[in-house]
Amino acid sequence: MKDWPIGIFDSGVGGLTVYRAVKKLLPNEKIIYLGDTARIPYGTRSPSTVKRYAHQDAAFLIKYSVKMLVIACNTISSVAIESLKLAFSVPILGVIEPGAKRAASITRNGRVGVIATEATVESDAYKIAIKACQPEIDVFSQACPLFVPLAEEGWSSHHVTKLVAQEYLKPLIDQKIDTLVLGCTHYPILRNIIQEIVGKNVTLLDSGECVAAEVVDLLQQQKAFASSKNGDDLFYVTDSGKRFRRTAELFLGEELKNLTAVDIWQTDTTANVLGSLDMLTELSDIH
Amino acid sequence: MKDWPIGIFDSGVGGLTVYRAVKKLLPNEKIIYLGDTARIPYGTRSPSTVKRYAHQDAAFLIKYSVKMLVIACNTISSVAIESLKLAFSVPILGVIEPGAKRAASITRNGRVGVIATEATVESDAYKIAIKACQPEIDVFSQACPLFVPLAEEGWSSHHVTKLVAQEYLKPLIDQKIDTLVLGCTHYPILRNIIQEIVGKNVTLLDSGECVAAEVVDLLQQQKAFASSKNGDDLFYVTDSGKRFRRTAELFLGEELKNLTAVDIWQTDTTANVLGSLDMLTELSDIH
Repeated sequence: MKDWPIGIFDSGVGGLTVYRAVKKLLPNEKIIYLGDTARIPYGTRSPSTVKRYAHQDAAFLIKYSVKMLVIACNTISSVAIESLKLAFSVPILGVIEPGAKRAASITRNGRVGVIATEATVESDAYKIAIKACQPEIDVFSQACPLFVPLAEEGWSSHHVTKLVAQEYLKPLIDQKIDTLVLGCTHYPILRNIIQEIVGKNVTLLDSGECVAAEVVDLLQQQKAFASSKNGDDLFYVTDSGKRFRRTAELFLGEELKNLTAVDIWQTDTTANVLGSLDMLTELSDIH
Repeated sequence: MKDWPIGIFDSGVGGLTVYRAVKKLLPNEKIIYLGDTARIPYGTRSPSTVKRYAHQDAAFLIKYSVKMLVIACNTISSVAIESLKLAFSVPILGVIEPGAKRAASITRNGRVGVIATEATVESDAYKIAIKACQPEIDVFSQACPLFVPLAEEGWSSHHVTKLVAQEYLKPLIDQKIDTLVLGCTHYPILRNIIQEIVGKNVTLLDSGECVAAEVVDLLQQQKAFASSKNGDDLFYVTDSGKRFRRTAELFLGEELKNLTAVDIWQTDTTANVLGSLDMLTELSDIH
């Protein structure tokens, strides 16, 4: 089982920053990545819809005998992780808890900022998780809906992005935060601009890097490191890979191999969990 | 049949600019609007995915005995209208052809600009439709992926939007266009800023207003105007209506009544066309 792959999933391309962080610490592990690009973004959807999609995503990866699942998406982690843990028996790590634990341990003045999608901010998931570590910490959250399209447009050092960042981050700077959680997996792409706006005295926490460290801990505890590199990583998307490939190569800085478009929503969650065989259907044109 | 409602659908809230334009010309008609908010945006998805979603949207409205369908979305109009016309027998109007015809008839210098989503631009639908009217017209297209999130963020007069518009519109201004088609139903929300950037000598064409005029023509031809106002308009969304309501009220400038969340994707296109009874299921939490 230790040579089984690690499954990582996200609503799209943002989770590749988590993939990158895991890969950096664990180059020997084989990773299967799913980006649900046909239904991105999750960040503006209702909790019940996010849960339904997340169950379909997880069920798809479970079919590949993964040894653990990493939810590389703050929205899914904030609204669906408990429900996923009930449904699936492999270990499941989300990005909220590792980021929250790290934020609570490093803040010096007890004032932590969180930037995320609307859904993550509305869920209060970071605030709850940080206060579970240190109840006296003040947490200030800010939704930044334009950051994802700006990152995907490749405007990571554009003056427009700087202006948008100034507007979104001002309330957090006014609150004198000393730690800022990048609570959406797209945001590390804009890290340089965000750091420039908040100043060098504010520590930025990349939720992907935090969860990658927990993946290492978990594999260590379970003595489950891969014995040797077992084939290339695989990337699946639920819509045409063209746009994903372009943005992915922008995010990863290298060519993407082994990218396949699949259909995961023809069957419902129960059927997936029970092991439906028709889940992996190549996308075909209905015209 | 003339007292049947008109069905209008879009991937989300953008099509409300078409709803508004139809309503302005035809206040007596009852309209049923569907926004597929659970799967917005369509503009960055592959043609086969857009077609599949569009068939589900249309099949949902057909169940309400609509006398015609208006596709209030440029992406769907550009990639799926022919496929929809094959599948459904009610008259179907898209936004591309009316906008293209109008652009071809009003340009004085034969240089027309089109701004739209990536999918619409890549489909070349406007260029093909405009050249079908007047082959000698030069058409210059520009994808503006940040306009939709900016409109939905309510930043319709924000200086950031002005900077983004300057960047996107510069190549079209350089081409000395005299007519600019707003080829995405969200863009009329940013009309003032776009007009300011391109200057008053460039005529802006709102594709929603163009299709509304064709709806009037078609009802006139078919002598199918409603004899009297037959109940309130109905609005359906496929995800929680909270965000839709907020943006819709921003777009329409009034309170939205009769908004219901429905599930349209449990059955496949064939089942919908044949009349599946379980299509209209209230969204429920799967946890």
